[in-house]
Amino acid sequence: MTGLFHAPVMQELMEQFGKLPGIGPKTAQRLAFFVLSLSEGEVKAFSQALVNAKETMTLCPVCFSLTDITPCQVCRDETRDRQVICVVEETTDVFSIERARDYRGLYHVLHGSISPMEGRQPEDLKIKELLTRFEGEEGSKIKEVILATNPDVEGETTALYLARLLKPLGIKATRIAHGIPVGGNLEHADAATLAQALEGRRTID
Amino acid sequence: MTGLFHAPVMQELMEQFGKLPGIGPKTAQRLAFFVLSLSEGEVKAFSQALVNAKETMTLCPVCFSLTDITPCQVCRDETRDRQVICVVEETTDVFSIERARDYRGLYHVLHGSISPMEGRQPEDLKIKELLTRFEGEEGSKIKEVILATNPDVEGETTALYLARLLKPLGIKATRIAHGIPVGGNLEHADAATLAQALEGRRTID
Repeated sequence: MTGLFHAPVMQELMEQFGKLPGIGPKTAQRLAFFVLSLSEGEVKAFSQALVNAKETMTLCPVCFSLTDITPCQVCRDETRDRQVICVVEETTDVFSIERARDYRGLYHVLHGSISPMEGRQPEDLKIKELLTRFEGEEGSKIKEVILATNPDVEGETTALYLARLLKPLGIKATRIAHGIPVGGNLEHADAATLAQALEGRRTID
Repeated sequence: MTGLFHAPVMQELMEQFGKLPGIGPKTAQRLAFFVLSLSEGEVKAFSQALVNAKETMTLCPVCFSLTDITPCQVCRDETRDRQVICVVEETTDVFSIERARDYRGLYHVLHGSISPMEGRQPEDLKIKELLTRFEGEEGSKIKEVILATNPDVEGETTALYLARLLKPLGIKATRIAHGIPVGGNLEHADAATLAQALEGRRTID
C-alpha cells in the first residue's frame, strides 16, 4: 500500500502555496482544494492579479518603497515634510506607520535588516541609496532621520549601524521608542520591553 | 490627511488572497508583498499553477472526488475492496483517510454536509449519485457504507439522513467512531486517530 498521491497539478499548486510565508503543508492543501471550488473566472482573476502586481510594481527611485507610480505617492506629495526621513525595513512598514496618521515626513525602505547570521550584509540593503539622498539641494534640507527598523536583534543592529554612518554627516538620528504597547498590560510585557520602557521614561508636565 | 492607499494592482491582489479561507486582511497584505519579492518566473509559475489545477481537475464520475484522471485513482484500482464505500464530505477527507493506510474500500464524496442554517439541502450534495451506485451488477456487490462525515452537527445530521436512506435498501450503514474529537475536523486528524475511528465504526440502527 503506497497511499493515494495527489494529481501533479495539485501537487504543484500546493508547492506554490507552500512557498508563501506562514503556509504549512496542510494549509497549502486546503488552499489548493479551495481554488477548485472557485469558478474558472475567479481563478483566472486570481492568476492575473499575481502577474499584474508583479509586472506593475517597481521600486520608487527615491525612497525604494514598492510603488505603481514613480516617484511614489509619498515622495511626489509636496505637502510632506522634507526635513525628516523615516527609515524602515519593508514597504509594508510604510503602510503601518501611515495608518497611525501621525507622521508627515518622507520614508526610506532598506529592504531588510543587517543579519550576518543569515548572510545579509549592509551592502545588500538600500543604505548607499539612503546616503545619496543627503546630497544636493534637496538633501541639504534633511534635518533628521528616524530609525524605525524592527525592535529585534537585526533591527537594532541596523539602526546602530546607520546612526554611526549618519553622525559624521551632521544629521540627527533618532530611534523609535520601545515600551509597553498602548492598551497593553504590564503583566504581559516581557522583561526586555519593560526595561526599555523604564529607561525611556519621560517627565509628566 | 487621508493616509496612504495601496496601488490598485496590490489592492486587487490582497482581495484575491483575502478570499482564501483563514486569510485575514493583514495576512493578505503580507502575502501580496511577498509575491513582489519573488522573481517574475516564480510569479508566472504560481499564476499558471492556479489555472492549470482548475483546468485539469474534474469530478470522478463514479465517486465524485476531484481528480485529474477519470475514473479516479481509487475507483480504477482493481485491488480495492468493492464491497465497502466510505462516504466523506470533501476530497481532502479521502486523502486524510488514505494517509491512515488502513482502509482499502471505495469512496464517495458528498461535497458538503446538510446544513439548513446555511441553506445546504440534501439535493445540493452528491446523495442521488450515491444511491445510483447501488444499482446494477457492480452495485449489488456493496455490503457496507461507512459514513465518515465530520463529527459536527452538520456531519452527524448528514450521516443520520444517509443511514435512513440506506436502511430500506438493505445496506449496512456504519458510522466512524468518535476517536476524532467532537467538533473537530477530518482534515486535521492524525493518521492513528483516523485508523482507530475507522476500526471502531458502529452500525446505525
